[in-house]
Amino acid sequence: MGGISGSYAEGADAIVVSGGYRDDEDHGDWILYTGQGGNVGRRQVADQELTRGNLALALSEERGLPVRVIRGAGGDPKLSPTTGYRYDGLYVVVRHWQEASVDGPLIWRFVLEREGAPGSSIAAVADPSDASAQRRESTQQRIVRNSAVTQWVKDLYGGRCQFCGIVLETAAGAYSEGAHVRALGSPNDGPDTVDNVLCLCPNDHVLFDKGALYVADGKIVRSHDGFVLGELTVRAGHTVREEHFAYHREHFAGVRRGA
Amino acid sequence: MGGISGSYAEGADAIVVSGGYRDDEDHGDWILYTGQGGNVGRRQVADQELTRGNLALALSEERGLPVRVIRGAGGDPKLSPTTGYRYDGLYVVVRHWQEASVDGPLIWRFVLEREGAPGSSIAAVADPSDASAQRRESTQQRIVRNSAVTQWVKDLYGGRCQFCGIVLETAAGAYSEGAHVRALGSPNDGPDTVDNVLCLCPNDHVLFDKGALYVADGKIVRSHDGFVLGELTVRAGHTVREEHFAYHREHFAGVRRGA
Repeated sequence: MGGISGSYAEGADAIVVSGGYRDDEDHGDWILYTGQGGNVGRRQVADQELTRGNLALALSEERGLPVRVIRGAGGDPKLSPTTGYRYDGLYVVVRHWQEASVDGPLIWRFVLEREGAPGSSIAAVADPSDASAQRRESTQQRIVRNSAVTQWVKDLYGGRCQFCGIVLETAAGAYSEGAHVRALGSPNDGPDTVDNVLCLCPNDHVLFDKGALYVADGKIVRSHDGFVLGELTVRAGHTVREEHFAYHREHFAGVRRGA
Repeated sequence: MGGISGSYAEGADAIVVSGGYRDDEDHGDWILYTGQGGNVGRRQVADQELTRGNLALALSEERGLPVRVIRGAGGDPKLSPTTGYRYDGLYVVVRHWQEASVDGPLIWRFVLEREGAPGSSIAAVADPSDASAQRRESTQQRIVRNSAVTQWVKDLYGGRCQFCGIVLETAAGAYSEGAHVRALGSPNDGPDTVDNVLCLCPNDHVLFDKGALYVADGKIVRSHDGFVLGELTVRAGHTVREEHFAYHREHFAGVRRGA
């Protein structure tokens, strides 16, 4: 129940979805999965750590490695076998964060999407039978999207990073990325509106998305030691809503509510 | 013939493929397209600049905006209409570089891939009829891939950028990207081997891919002014082949052969 198979060095091989955690949600093409540890039976008594199976799943995300999903009879009756276990294909980990469980202690949460599912935020991993050898074994580590909303924010800052102030100059102009503070899509459901978007350089975008940096009281904070790196630059006409920063702190940087 | 419609501010709306440039290659699902300017009839007499239509195509790439492809009767007979012009769907610009034309002067080259083509390096842009509003109008600005080869290089450097030395620390370990020096896939056909891969931070990966930085004689050079930023860090057991750096300089950073 709730098993994660894998290692720190290799990422997660497989997860078992069988109703072991009451916070899990199985939507077929995507799964909201709870990490392991800190529980006594179904009760969460201590914070989960980003170690062992949880770290393996985070590594799978970082490396773009697919994870086998095994569904067991204890899961959603519409999606699960009536008895025993069934291999249900490859999924990719698209996101993870920490949040308070129903019982109080913190749990890690992972979103897995079926490879190539319609509307997936991740494209299908290249077909291994593809004749072009250079595409074999290739997986997607990271996708950056653009939209009219993110472009508006990037244009307002002229591509200057709101965290570190760098401008990546190329022959075609400044390169920057629009970072959603509260992540888009289920289950985070952040809005694609300018009050939820920052203009960041790729480095700070990665660190922010992975919760290594967060924003509190207009300051940019390093999560692991609370060190303040500087002030968030904000230009006239652009306000990022504090509730989105609060959501990011609590869900992606492991900061407890009210801390 | 060879027309690019669009603007610096908006990117390219459309290109016309009708055999105007003899260096063009139309493969149906992907097109190797030559930029505009510097020619008298079919003869290239001066270097093309990254301005006007050429800059618009580069912007379309940077923003992930699709480009309409119009095929005209002068193009490849198997792919083109017998008379007049035909709208042939949406393509995305996946790469651009500068190289010497058959006549000598430099030309800009763009690779466009049909949206959602099988084996495409770019996934289909989300279906606009997708009910989840946050995915509408979203385009792919950048995809980072990982493979056993890039992972080997990243592990050797412990995620430390070979250009700037930064390590992006996250709760799941260091985040870095494997950058191919000579780009993979047609028409650049770089190999997916460790002697063609660098471990870079996302910022330097973007700058290197876009030709804003290059490597010469073990030095990291800023393309627009030739300023030397530092030395390339190389660890024992890892040799990047000079011919790949030379290819990158000539094709992505606009450095003339032998310069």
